[in-house]
Amino acid sequence: MAITTIGLDGDDTLWHSENYFELTTGRLVELLEPWIDDTGAARARLIDTERRNLALLGYGVKAFTLSMIETAIQLSDGQIPASAVQEIIAWGHELLAHPVELLDGVDATVQELREEYDLVLVTKGDLLHQESKIALSGIETHFRGIEIVSEKDPITYRRVLQRHGVDPADFVMVGNSVRSDVLPVIELGGLAVHVPYQVTWALEHPDTEDVRPFPTIGSLRELPALLSDLGG
Amino acid sequence: MAITTIGLDGDDTLWHSENYFELTTGRLVELLEPWIDDTGAARARLIDTERRNLALLGYGVKAFTLSMIETAIQLSDGQIPASAVQEIIAWGHELLAHPVELLDGVDATVQELREEYDLVLVTKGDLLHQESKIALSGIETHFRGIEIVSEKDPITYRRVLQRHGVDPADFVMVGNSVRSDVLPVIELGGLAVHVPYQVTWALEHPDTEDVRPFPTIGSLRELPALLSDLGG
Repeated sequence: MAITTIGLDGDDTLWHSENYFELTTGRLVELLEPWIDDTGAARARLIDTERRNLALLGYGVKAFTLSMIETAIQLSDGQIPASAVQEIIAWGHELLAHPVELLDGVDATVQELREEYDLVLVTKGDLLHQESKIALSGIETHFRGIEIVSEKDPITYRRVLQRHGVDPADFVMVGNSVRSDVLPVIELGGLAVHVPYQVTWALEHPDTEDVRPFPTIGSLRELPALLSDLGG
Repeated sequence: MAITTIGLDGDDTLWHSENYFELTTGRLVELLEPWIDDTGAARARLIDTERRNLALLGYGVKAFTLSMIETAIQLSDGQIPASAVQEIIAWGHELLAHPVELLDGVDATVQELREEYDLVLVTKGDLLHQESKIALSGIETHFRGIEIVSEKDPITYRRVLQRHGVDPADFVMVGNSVRSDVLPVIELGGLAVHVPYQVTWALEHPDTEDVRPFPTIGSLRELPALLSDLGG
């Protein structure tokens, strides 16, 4: 085994993202206070709506905004005023325009890794928003390839690896989502490293706990040493 | 000059799309009738909103849906009820799920072209929705490459051509939008053929009429003969 190529996830692996969604969910719950008495149930309702919309709307801020509006209409029993809907739309615009803040140690680690490995950024979400975040990240030039995908399943990873001429056995994927970054790559015969973020979106929770063990690190800073141990 | 590669646009070049948006715009204007007295001005307001949102939201159905909601709130002076907003969201879902209907002659022409040229599909819009339409089109396997992009400007076309190792001089782009399919490719030194669709979205109108002449055909069926004439 000789690791030649590292796949890196974007949102919540290289830069902060979920914290902004979390903050916005808090605002939504606050906005809906006149109509709800259980904030936990309200959050669960939003997640249900997102889950139901996923196959049609996909990932990203625009889908999230539409799901927030739908949830607000349902939870208010159609009583939410247009001004509140306009407010939700404005939150969506804010989410799309938030600054790109790299996680601690990302810049230095990515620079170090690129000396030894080919780096491929594999990220999902709104095409334009992901492109914009990558451009603003300041680390774009360290990547040999950038792949913005609509879903992170084994088929997608196989296509990405084929495009770059990489054997799964020579590939390690690194990211904060067990469901999207770890399990599908292990299924293909590659390696994967989990770097948990401070908060995990409900739809990224894996269906099953019955998986092969995989390494978990607390920060991307620990990745170079781990890869050396793995024989990269 | 030896044309080796043909770029084909998706929406309104290979399959119907704008007619669905047009229909939905008509529904929106009807919904807003209680608050407006000039339907032309209402349509213009929607286009203004889309134009203002373009840099942040990009292209596609989700952006269109959000712009419809915003326009409805503005034109109703905040009086639109939540039930009407829910209706607009449902139209967005319908747009994402509409059947993929190939334009007349597309299937046979694409099959004929692939015998002689490498075909690359170059399309913009929501990533997931474009992927889904391509999968449903039944002609996916005729393409050597599929490129879903966030904007069709010279930089994007240059990147696409580099990825496929194609010289602009050996490339011809074919599509219904002068702004997105024709002008940027001519600017790069490639050829372009315009196939107008029955209706053109306002944001696809070119800024200027001052352009090099380019061939226009009435249907994709005419493309093989035109390419022979061009010396392909």
